[in-house]
Amino acid sequence: MGYELTVEGLRDLAEGAAVLGTGGGGDPYIGRLLVEQQLHAGRGIRVIGVDELPDDALVLPSAMMGAPTVFVEKAPSGAGNVIALRALERHLGRTAAATMPIECGGINSMMPLLLGAQTGLPVVDADGMGRAFPELQMETFAVYGVPGSPMSIASDHGDSGIIDAVDNRRMERLARAMTVEMGGAAYICDYPMDAATVRRTAIPGTLSLAMKLGAALRVARAEHADPFERLSEALAGTIYTHGIVLFTGKVVDVDRRTTGGFARGTVTLAANDDPADEMVITFQNEHLIARRGGRVAAIVPDLICTLNSETGRPVTTEALAYGQRLAVYAISTPGLMRTPEALACFGPEAFGLSEPYVPVEQLTGEPSPSPA
Amino acid sequence: MGYELTVEGLRDLAEGAAVLGTGGGGDPYIGRLLVEQQLHAGRGIRVIGVDELPDDALVLPSAMMGAPTVFVEKAPSGAGNVIALRALERHLGRTAAATMPIECGGINSMMPLLLGAQTGLPVVDADGMGRAFPELQMETFAVYGVPGSPMSIASDHGDSGIIDAVDNRRMERLARAMTVEMGGAAYICDYPMDAATVRRTAIPGTLSLAMKLGAALRVARAEHADPFERLSEALAGTIYTHGIVLFTGKVVDVDRRTTGGFARGTVTLAANDDPADEMVITFQNEHLIARRGGRVAAIVPDLICTLNSETGRPVTTEALAYGQRLAVYAISTPGLMRTPEALACFGPEAFGLSEPYVPVEQLTGEPSPSPA
Repeated sequence: MGYELTVEGLRDLAEGAAVLGTGGGGDPYIGRLLVEQQLHAGRGIRVIGVDELPDDALVLPSAMMGAPTVFVEKAPSGAGNVIALRALERHLGRTAAATMPIECGGINSMMPLLLGAQTGLPVVDADGMGRAFPELQMETFAVYGVPGSPMSIASDHGDSGIIDAVDNRRMERLARAMTVEMGGAAYICDYPMDAATVRRTAIPGTLSLAMKLGAALRVARAEHADPFERLSEALAGTIYTHGIVLFTGKVVDVDRRTTGGFARGTVTLAANDDPADEMVITFQNEHLIARRGGRVAAIVPDLICTLNSETGRPVTTEALAYGQRLAVYAISTPGLMRTPEALACFGPEAFGLSEPYVPVEQLTGEPSPSPA
Repeated sequence: MGYELTVEGLRDLAEGAAVLGTGGGGDPYIGRLLVEQQLHAGRGIRVIGVDELPDDALVLPSAMMGAPTVFVEKAPSGAGNVIALRALERHLGRTAAATMPIECGGINSMMPLLLGAQTGLPVVDADGMGRAFPELQMETFAVYGVPGSPMSIASDHGDSGIIDAVDNRRMERLARAMTVEMGGAAYICDYPMDAATVRRTAIPGTLSLAMKLGAALRVARAEHADPFERLSEALAGTIYTHGIVLFTGKVVDVDRRTTGGFARGTVTLAANDDPADEMVITFQNEHLIARRGGRVAAIVPDLICTLNSETGRPVTTEALAYGQRLAVYAISTPGLMRTPEALACFGPEAFGLSEPYVPVEQLTGEPSPSPA
């Protein structure tokens, strides 16, 4: 079931993960380069299914924390990755059997792969969001009862720490404060859990799905096909069910600031055929809500992706710029992310939005998929 | 050599420690109440000399970190004290033989006593400054080569953490960020060291000295004697050598703000006999420099103490208020605090002051003490 990651697979994965990153999760280029270096140095990376570990095997998810805008200004070296893993292993008095992403994204799908290459640990094909979210408590792990603490945090400078918070929200705030002090970017290992718990709480197969989406975009470009049709075909039959182009237009305004450890702001697009027809997307690292003429077009936790309208390449929130021609592509989030418990954790209200959650396929009047 | 702390001894100690706290180290009343509760509940506190432990006994210094202004608004419960100790013991895989203050002050001379009562650990009669300083790297321990990391940090809410920084300055910054996120006040254990290292690097006897200074003030009040003469008599023959009244006057202005986890600002006093004769003291939790008519009257690391001009009671920087009648009393810092290494760590330049360090007894033309 498991497989060794190839350089081509990695490139597809990085691009597909950035699509699932919904504008966040960091620049796919930076994360990919770090992992590619490892592959070229002859280090292998084994991706394994959630079923390939014994129930009691310790899985330590790994990620980078911080504002993606910071990664652009100073690329991470990757050194803190192993420091964070070893700090948590030492604290727990146990050795990890595998690592795993906590989210999909250009950086955060890559960091566990980097850690796998650095340490020889296999990487579980699953994560805690099936997309990207800006805060650590916004994980299916948290929704379904896994404590995020104790977690470890480390910087490329060699500083490290352990945080043992009373709840996952406090953990996020304490880790965010450390991240800001570490320069706006830090390596973390959190939600330590056994493989049985991974099987119960994670979104399965998201590394492979990202690879499939990235491959679809690559092939579409080679064949001069419509990348969005190809993405939707690749999603059909998966737990994501719908992929829909909501809007196509030009970026006419970007309001973005890095504050409190996040990249926050809005991007405004004007339609190609009617400049008065605008879509405004609000983001906190990731895109949260897309409004068209004041009406909600898509809202968290459904995925709102900003992609180059010609090539389908994902454009992350820190890379948005005036004049870009983008398609806003929405993906329906998996059912595990739409339960009342899940919406309480990362639905619109968790981001201070007053609009209720309505599934994107209802908002756009898409037909339901035929039951599998 | 060691002794059991009595309620009267505790009260003297709290007041004397607040004198040595040089305006910082927190309100002596709050800290004392926490310890008095323990004594009234029948828990003993044993104060021991630096020579009473075997060389390899583990000493874990303990303190509160944060802006004293915060302690006034929300008194600490003391619960986080034991959490911090146990977190560091667990991380080190060793059990503490004793605790110790890191500094003198109304709160921070009390917290190790509280921990002693809570856990039964003896408290070493010594500390790492012989006064109070605002930052964690400003310790004789650091000056003489002891790493502050790993350190533990905890809140009254039950959150805790371990910080393992590459140097003591980074440790301070990371711990400060955690402290701010924990609500502006946190419990810490840092500079884990063996008793042989305590003997080499600590300022000895400062708990007993604080008790002696507090007793001198108490007796002066009972006997209607001059409290400042009594303080100077109590200091004579100790490693502090000089105690000098620099100025007596009324507070005419206080500029104080709580920022970045510190209480920062200035206090201006006008002389009783000549309102045009002003002394301006700049503080960062503790008093850093006293200027009179633009001329330096005393400067760190010498101790600048603001005391009620009638009673000698210390007034901490967070309690300074318009109209208070104060004496500014300077104390020469021990020789271990005046070495070039020590001045590099907590001399004027470390606080961004451009004036060089000049011993207060030179600034005031006091006679040198006869060699002991």
